[in-house]
Amino acid sequence: MQEIIAEMMGVVRSRTPLVHHITNYVTVNDCANACICAGGSPVMTDEAQDVPDIVRISSAVVLNIGTLNQRTVESMRIAGNEADRIGVPVVLDPVGAGATAYRTAVARELMGYDAVRIVKGNSGEISVLAGMEGEVRGVDSVSGAGDGHAAISLARSTGRVVAATGETDYVSDGEVTYAIGNGCGLMERVSGTGCMVSSLVGAYAGACGASLEAVAAALTVFSVAGEIAGEGSPGPGTFKARLLDAVHNLKSEDILERAEIRRL
Amino acid sequence: MQEIIAEMMGVVRSRTPLVHHITNYVTVNDCANACICAGGSPVMTDEAQDVPDIVRISSAVVLNIGTLNQRTVESMRIAGNEADRIGVPVVLDPVGAGATAYRTAVARELMGYDAVRIVKGNSGEISVLAGMEGEVRGVDSVSGAGDGHAAISLARSTGRVVAATGETDYVSDGEVTYAIGNGCGLMERVSGTGCMVSSLVGAYAGACGASLEAVAAALTVFSVAGEIAGEGSPGPGTFKARLLDAVHNLKSEDILERAEIRRL
Amino acid sequence: MQEIIAEMMGVVRSRTPLVHHITNYVTVNDCANACICAGGSPVMTDEAQDVPDIVRISSAVVLNIGTLNQRTVESMRIAGNEADRIGVPVVLDPVGAGATAYRTAVARELMGYDAVRIVKGNSGEISVLAGMEGEVRGVDSVSGAGDGHAAISLARSTGRVVAATGETDYVSDGEVTYAIGNGCGLMERVSGTGCMVSSLVGAYAGACGASLEAVAAALTVFSVAGEIAGEGSPGPGTFKARLLDAVHNLKSEDILERAEIRRL
Repeated sequence: MQEIIAEMMGVVRSRTPLVHHITNYVTVNDCANACICAGGSPVMTDEAQDVPDIVRISSAVVLNIGTLNQRTVESMRIAGNEADRIGVPVVLDPVGAGATAYRTAVARELMGYDAVRIVKGNSGEISVLAGMEGEVRGVDSVSGAGDGHAAISLARSTGRVVAATGETDYVSDGEVTYAIGNGCGLMERVSGTGCMVSSLVGAYAGACGASLEAVAAALTVFSVAGEIAGEGSPGPGTFKARLLDAVHNLKSEDILERAEIRRL
Repeated sequence: MQEIIAEMMGVVRSRTPLVHHITNYVTVNDCANACICAGGSPVMTDEAQDVPDIVRISSAVVLNIGTLNQRTVESMRIAGNEADRIGVPVVLDPVGAGATAYRTAVARELMGYDAVRIVKGNSGEISVLAGMEGEVRGVDSVSGAGDGHAAISLARSTGRVVAATGETDYVSDGEVTYAIGNGCGLMERVSGTGCMVSSLVGAYAGACGASLEAVAAALTVFSVAGEIAGEGSPGPGTFKARLLDAVHNLKSEDILERAEIRRL
Repeated sequence: MQEIIAEMMGVVRSRTPLVHHITNYVTVNDCANACICAGGSPVMTDEAQDVPDIVRISSAVVLNIGTLNQRTVESMRIAGNEADRIGVPVVLDPVGAGATAYRTAVARELMGYDAVRIVKGNSGEISVLAGMEGEVRGVDSVSGAGDGHAAISLARSTGRVVAATGETDYVSDGEVTYAIGNGCGLMERVSGTGCMVSSLVGAYAGACGASLEAVAAALTVFSVAGEIAGEGSPGPGTFKARLLDAVHNLKSEDILERAEIRRL
């Protein structure tokens, strides 16, 4: 699998997929920069009149409900419809699903679009969406199935590729499941690392297709970059800058030598 | 007082208070990261349907009017009402009060909620809200009572804990007033240091209660971290990353040895 | 010309022009910090009730349509009208013009305000607005007249000062045109460098007037700072922090010794 990931890393960089984001205003800048560093070209628009034109030229769409509001949810519906119509893959990051009724409802609704081929959340969010026990406090996972069962279950019931992130990340299409290690403790101390990896998933799905392998590759790339960036970082502020550096500078060898990905 | 601050620093870190923000889109990412680095857990939502659910699970709410609009002001009202109902402390950062009629009016209105136990602004904003001479240019203080009188006056007339920041910060409950030194010149050269400290106030109020001491502790922690981060920083960009590092790494000894806080 | 730029750099720093931004939520924080580092004082508001009051106290206005929506476009109209009425110079950054019909239409409409004295886009956007062949993919220029012809043409047809950025930047008032080199490859790997330079243009126009020279000075300052910041930067994340440091620390000598600006 390491070889496939290293190869996909090159594909993303050579294709520069355009990744349309309708996302939150908290971490949007980090998402844009992470997407660029991975080899993608991010574009953000949430205006109803603008969304269809952008979806049509995009290789993938990322819908992140971190600071959803009624206007932008409507824009997400427009994006979902257009993506359904023309077959662009959509990544859903159901930020805070389980923390409020509105977020849970919107996340479930957006999963109804066929184009939403990939759902990527933390283990609490994925557990909630899978109908399992899970607790989400604000936008952070407090508890959830940390063993991959939530991702597997949601993948089976919905036919989507599902990623549940945590100390170990799990990615499943319901049949095959990967567990990914790497990362470092500072990733939990920076707002938006979860959002950033969703943008990377968008770039990988845009360049390589919305496959289990592409999602696993994006998560692995980000985790290995996080591990490298964490080495010698004095704190979260410096770490965030170094994390972007590491995504940008990541080499095939880093994946081949470091990636802790295994099939369950 | 240094001992109390050092102790509160540990309390915030051990309790990880959930701090709900309705804030501006300019500095929101820095607020989120500052809150995390101090030991809090930030959550941002300004959707009317989402706000009550989030207020109910939060330990504190921060209302920052930096990029207010009519929709988000309405969401702030919803947050104020819910906070009143259940007794969650609210921190108001009246960004730009005095610069425009709308901001001044909104700031005054929001101070009408009982739950708004804490008002934290720059000396110009606090002077304006205290009905004293003060000048606010855009979102920066040009002139204002730099001697703590504005904070004392507003605290007395409203019964709130009031902090007025500047080269020296003042925090008052109308009876007791603290002056806090520390900090460094680069803090003025980074957008959002005022917003970041409001988020720290939210974390401290959420973990330790909306007391004069908790507000003073948050301001002291941020100023000491700013002083440490400023040492050897080559410019504002690097400084901002180091500021977050310093908040994250701050030790009790740093407070005990460096904090320049005195009772007036 | 280097001497004029170095002198203007001092003027901006001594006058601290207030620069009102109605801009996108992706790069707004970087715009604020770039403006501060250059010597300006940024203020962001897009609320219709707030905009006229802020325009009236501002030295310049920056309208950036990066994440435009119908509400904020209406606020841009209000800003344009107020700027027309009182004679405040406006800088338009037509982000994504050419990529969608809505963006192109809004950019053209906003150019109708007399106060919009300056248009600053990438070479694709400027080519589209000039009615020449140009391609904009998302918010990035794919192709456009990279030889200054688009800027010259748009300046002539509209009577504005027009800047088209790319590997070489061009600034023209239709009669005189400058080409600016400097910069570094990492500037393309950070989201928002184009937006940041528009904020610098706002600061320079606010302090020195909306002249060809002021726009050329802002672009040159940013490009030289980018060149300095790029030296030894390990990647885009660290580079962005160093870019702000470099804008803040830039000296007259840096301009005099490094600036590659020539009249066509």
